[in-house]
Amino acid sequence: MSDLVNEFNAYREKMNERILGDDNKVIKRIFNLDTNAYQAGALDVKTKELLGLVASAVLRCDDCIKYHLETAYKAGLNRAEVVEALSIATLVGGTIVIPHLRRAYEFWDALEAQDN
Amino acid sequence: MSDLVNEFNAYREKMNERILGDDNKVIKRIFNLDTNAYQAGALDVKTKELLGLVASAVLRCDDCIKYHLETAYKAGLNRAEVVEALSIATLVGGTIVIPHLRRAYEFWDALEAQDN
Amino acid sequence: MSDLVNEFNAYREKMNERILGDDNKVIKRIFNLDTNAYQAGALDVKTKELLGLVASAVLRCDDCIKYHLETAYKAGLNRAEVVEALSIATLVGGTIVIPHLRRAYEFWDALEAQDN
Amino acid sequence: MSDLVNEFNAYREKMNERILGDDNKVIKRIFNLDTNAYQAGALDVKTKELLGLVASAVLRCDDCIKYHLETAYKAGLNRAEVVEALSIATLVGGTIVIPHLRRAYEFWDALEAQDN
Amino acid sequence: MSDLVNEFNAYREKMNERILGDDNKVIKRIFNLDTNAYQAGALDVKTKELLGLVASAVLRCDDCIKYHLETAYKAGLNRAEVVEALSIATLVGGTIVIPHLRRAYEFWDALEAQDN
Amino acid sequence: MSDLVNEFNAYREKMNERILGDDNKVIKRIFNLDTNAYQAGALDVKTKELLGLVASAVLRCDDCIKYHLETAYKAGLNRAEVVEALSIATLVGGTIVIPHLRRAYEFWDALEAQDN
Repeated sequence: MSDLVNEFNAYREKMNERILGDDNKVIKRIFNLDTNAYQAGALDVKTKELLGLVASAVLRCDDCIKYHLETAYKAGLNRAEVVEALSIATLVGGTIVIPHLRRAYEFWDALEAQDN
Repeated sequence: MSDLVNEFNAYREKMNERILGDDNKVIKRIFNLDTNAYQAGALDVKTKELLGLVASAVLRCDDCIKYHLETAYKAGLNRAEVVEALSIATLVGGTIVIPHLRRAYEFWDALEAQDN
Repeated sequence: MSDLVNEFNAYREKMNERILGDDNKVIKRIFNLDTNAYQAGALDVKTKELLGLVASAVLRCDDCIKYHLETAYKAGLNRAEVVEALSIATLVGGTIVIPHLRRAYEFWDALEAQDN
Repeated sequence: MSDLVNEFNAYREKMNERILGDDNKVIKRIFNLDTNAYQAGALDVKTKELLGLVASAVLRCDDCIKYHLETAYKAGLNRAEVVEALSIATLVGGTIVIPHLRRAYEFWDALEAQDN
Repeated sequence: MSDLVNEFNAYREKMNERILGDDNKVIKRIFNLDTNAYQAGALDVKTKELLGLVASAVLRCDDCIKYHLETAYKAGLNRAEVVEALSIATLVGGTIVIPHLRRAYEFWDALEAQDN
Repeated sequence: MSDLVNEFNAYREKMNERILGDDNKVIKRIFNLDTNAYQAGALDVKTKELLGLVASAVLRCDDCIKYHLETAYKAGLNRAEVVEALSIATLVGGTIVIPHLRRAYEFWDALEAQDN
């Protein structure tokens, strides 16, 4: 089992519980929306996951990228599709996206390694 | 014919010619890549246009949003699909995306009005 | 009556109606949250308006700045308080905030002129 | 004593000394301004600390968030006030602020733990 | 005489006077620093102007770009040097810089036209 | 030999190989452009490295800053020149650049230590 993936998820879950336990309405609703927004609608789940991934990549948020890589992986997107999405993010967002691309590759490799 | 769309495209084309006429290799290649990156590959053209749109929206670049709205429109994406993509951009990017959402709606309306 | 203020509000209201008429759940809830978040709670309304203003200023969103200047003005904040908040935004966000500071001053002057 | 807080402050102080020892006038004056800007004026210290915190949060600067959490804590702001400020930052800045919210909670907990 | 250049400078000067007349110490010192930072030191004025231009371009601040284009022009930098600096900004900052590149070209042309 | 420098370069090289091995045309060309853009042209290599450094600093990309610090160091730029460039970045980008300034100083010290 990959430490990179497990540690990311463990910290994320622990702190999300901590935040939601505090019962701030605005934050709770934003967390709720975050679940709703990626469900199938006019666009399917795979497309929406790629949109979340590209938004995270151009805004250069490593944790957001990791989260969407994992949900994309679970939604059945393959490496070629994910890489093509990230190539658009790198073009639109510029070479400053490249360090995040490195960490995205590392995390995707860890996701694949988990299953083998 | 919509002035909003026509004026946007006229200025864009005039200045792109001006820039490319200057023959800076790096800029020329970036312009080239911008054409290549949105062609069908592992992902289809429609998905890629939505990725370009969402990247533009969270980075809050009005001209980039307009450009991708028009290419999305021409690629056959409908309003519901575009709005759903923009809703993800607004959630990921926050309420500061809202003013750009207003102008995106106005531009999309102009694109639809052009055809009628 | 100030054209600057009236035109800003007219366009804002027209397009907000347009957007909300489209009935996208995620966008509607974000608009709702935007109203809720600035109501009195652990912090009073004036403080929250200044927080919204400074967030808008460092993210360099002119329309968001205008919106929060007007709500700050209506909440009874005075020029000295608003300017001090904007000075922190300029320090944290850097000199690229200055062009937005110019437009903020112009809009605040228009708000004050409206009442005289 | 919390390692999280102590390590943050130790590195910060060591490197600030290193930077200021280099005697670059522009950088020195920016550091000076950073002290001045948060002193009581038209707005009180607590409000200013929250403004600095929200600016840091929407610009997604973890170290800046930590610094303002500590100064906010020392200025006597309580958890409810700080969380409400951060909820505005998350709404304005979007879900990409959430990973920083996690680390902010962790740091605030460490600040409280230090005193017990 | 170019309207584009004159109108930009007229508004800028009018509002800067308005801001500085308000006598906020933090803002005044930031304005002061802005003058100091671009004077010759370890780096010459031309290099510093290009640094200010590239910083403005990647942060996508049109007014900051215009200001530095004019100071760069007055410092004797030629079009080839300015374009090469902007090509680096476009590569680092990505294709979202392109709309700002269009307006930068237009403003530089206006600066050159003023002298003929 | 400095661990800070060696670890940065080892990870960077390993992951770049991984990315380029995937053979995505858009990404490969962006990597290529990244090499081309900093070669001597209308501007010399030293100036271009400083432009890349300032762009990286205002966009607050630590890895990009480190990369350009090392290339700047190898191109023969001295500490005073690099610090002056970073002072402009801190002024334009604001106090949120300061944490990156701390890490930049630490990395530059490591580069100098490597040679002694």
